[in-house]
Amino acid sequence: MSATDNSGHPFDDIRQIVAAMPQADQQAVAAVRARNGELTKPAGSLGRLEWLVEWLAAWQAKEKPVIARPLVAVFAGSHGVTAQGVSAFPDAVNQQMLGNFANGGAAINQICAAYGLGFKVFDLAVDMPTRDITREPAMGDKDAVATMAFGMEAIAGGTDLLGIGEMGIGNTTIAAAIFTALYGGEAAHWVGRGTGVDDAGLERKVAAVEAAIALHRDHLDDPLAVLARLGGREIAAMAGAILAARSERVPVVVDGYVATAAAAILHAIDPRALDHCVFGHLSAEGAHRDVLERLGKVPLLALDMRLGEGSGAAMAMGLIKAAAHCHAGMATFAEAAVAQKLD
Amino acid sequence: MSATDNSGHPFDDIRQIVAAMPQADQQAVAAVRARNGELTKPAGSLGRLEWLVEWLAAWQAKEKPVIARPLVAVFAGSHGVTAQGVSAFPDAVNQQMLGNFANGGAAINQICAAYGLGFKVFDLAVDMPTRDITREPAMGDKDAVATMAFGMEAIAGGTDLLGIGEMGIGNTTIAAAIFTALYGGEAAHWVGRGTGVDDAGLERKVAAVEAAIALHRDHLDDPLAVLARLGGREIAAMAGAILAARSERVPVVVDGYVATAAAAILHAIDPRALDHCVFGHLSAEGAHRDVLERLGKVPLLALDMRLGEGSGAAMAMGLIKAAAHCHAGMATFAEAAVAQKLD
Repeated sequence: MSATDNSGHPFDDIRQIVAAMPQADQQAVAAVRARNGELTKPAGSLGRLEWLVEWLAAWQAKEKPVIARPLVAVFAGSHGVTAQGVSAFPDAVNQQMLGNFANGGAAINQICAAYGLGFKVFDLAVDMPTRDITREPAMGDKDAVATMAFGMEAIAGGTDLLGIGEMGIGNTTIAAAIFTALYGGEAAHWVGRGTGVDDAGLERKVAAVEAAIALHRDHLDDPLAVLARLGGREIAAMAGAILAARSERVPVVVDGYVATAAAAILHAIDPRALDHCVFGHLSAEGAHRDVLERLGKVPLLALDMRLGEGSGAAMAMGLIKAAAHCHAGMATFAEAAVAQKLD
Repeated sequence: MSATDNSGHPFDDIRQIVAAMPQADQQAVAAVRARNGELTKPAGSLGRLEWLVEWLAAWQAKEKPVIARPLVAVFAGSHGVTAQGVSAFPDAVNQQMLGNFANGGAAINQICAAYGLGFKVFDLAVDMPTRDITREPAMGDKDAVATMAFGMEAIAGGTDLLGIGEMGIGNTTIAAAIFTALYGGEAAHWVGRGTGVDDAGLERKVAAVEAAIALHRDHLDDPLAVLARLGGREIAAMAGAILAARSERVPVVVDGYVATAAAAILHAIDPRALDHCVFGHLSAEGAHRDVLERLGKVPLLALDMRLGEGSGAAMAMGLIKAAAHCHAGMATFAEAAVAQKLD
């Protein structure tokens, strides 16, 4: 695969969408900033909460940003690489957790209920794992693009703040392989314990990533080829969802280590592709900090979470809702007859 | 309250309450920990959210902790030290902000509404400032103890999670004076810009703290004497509220720089006195980090907030509610028929 123009290649459609992405609405940002200066608080004293409202305005292109239909979208996939013994849990958990999501028994169900967030699960054929990346490409190029297109449906029902999460046994290995492909360095730097593998499991994860990188090494210059060859489907779908949200001016909150791998693919295509994204939290998966620094992002929370399911994104969406509530509902100095700062 | 008891020094009553504080209920903690291990998530993967539920259980002494009546209590005071030109806002703002709180126009009103938190304001006689600490003690010893007793009323209406905040023009100067008295070092280390003083205002704050420490230096060995001499009333009331919550087994979320000064007084009396407290956020007021390290506390949020009003505590209470919701509502592996970790 070459990054130069290949007329008719399935990746071209994605590149065109990236090239056409809208940019921040500076007029909406200016309006929010002006109102922030009039609200009954010392200037800037709500810190990142004020910045978050500017960010909402920039991407919603609204001088009065709203969060009326927040949605957490969770993408579920399964992975042939689990044949290499990379996870502490069996593949059967994928299907079982879909049931748990449907029955409201998972952590993400509770967090969404606590904060009034909508919740949708996208099943990326968990009964049909992608191929084992230590032996073959996870997907064909067309499959990867079709899966991205499926992910773009996340916003079809309408939302004004999209949280992006995932579930898939083995997918921290896939994420580590993607980061190794994109950023180089030792596989061991990018591999963590995921759901909790022991030392032997960690060695198997490192070996699997090393084997995958060695196998695909001549095809990793194009970020979309990285996505197709290393997978997985939920990562392709999340990349599609993040990109579609950009096109439709929906601000995005990205979850942890695995969701960040989807974002990193887009960032590698165009560093501006994540300007509409905030990152919900710093994952306990060790290399997440390194990735976020490469993306130039400061996570909103750092609570040692490492669950996935969009849980860190959803926790952050609770903060963002409160930030928007402050901006919309506070009185101005004039309305409240509160004296302003002394000159 | 026997603040008028003639048989001893008024501080003795406070010391007796501290000496009688209940300790963590380890049985409740063990029950929460056991259930955490059975919920449908990798062990420990909710990170500090899991710890927060253990902490709630430890202090509520409940194997199934509940947050049914969360309350943010905001204590308002006014300060004679503003005569030294230490604030960017006029004293009149104290009374005006009480009106803004009552009308629902302040940031804390919006955050409480977003998260379903109760809200109460305690007016510590904002129309009657404490004395200027650069010239006299802020309060007499009996007044300080009576004000602590008033603060203890914060929990009188019943609550199961108490957020502690404050409002008072000039009170970052008071907080800085308290930290200088408790921890030593240069006044300039502890003084920050508060609501946003300019360089000249910052110099006046440093000079005011230096003058106060010099004036009271022979009376600062006893933390309760520090509280009485340096004030202010809202800080005394917050100290009383934190202590009363401990006695009645109500977990406490402390807000930022000024609220932490109240907590620090109790910690100086007995380092275990804050075991029932978490700290909502790291304030943008620079020395807050140093204080929290001395208290052995890791704040839940770091959002560059510096508003006070309990705003950082209330934001953190949103997180804690979601943590409790997860623990109470998630399915166990057995209930959801999800396979557990491989051996």
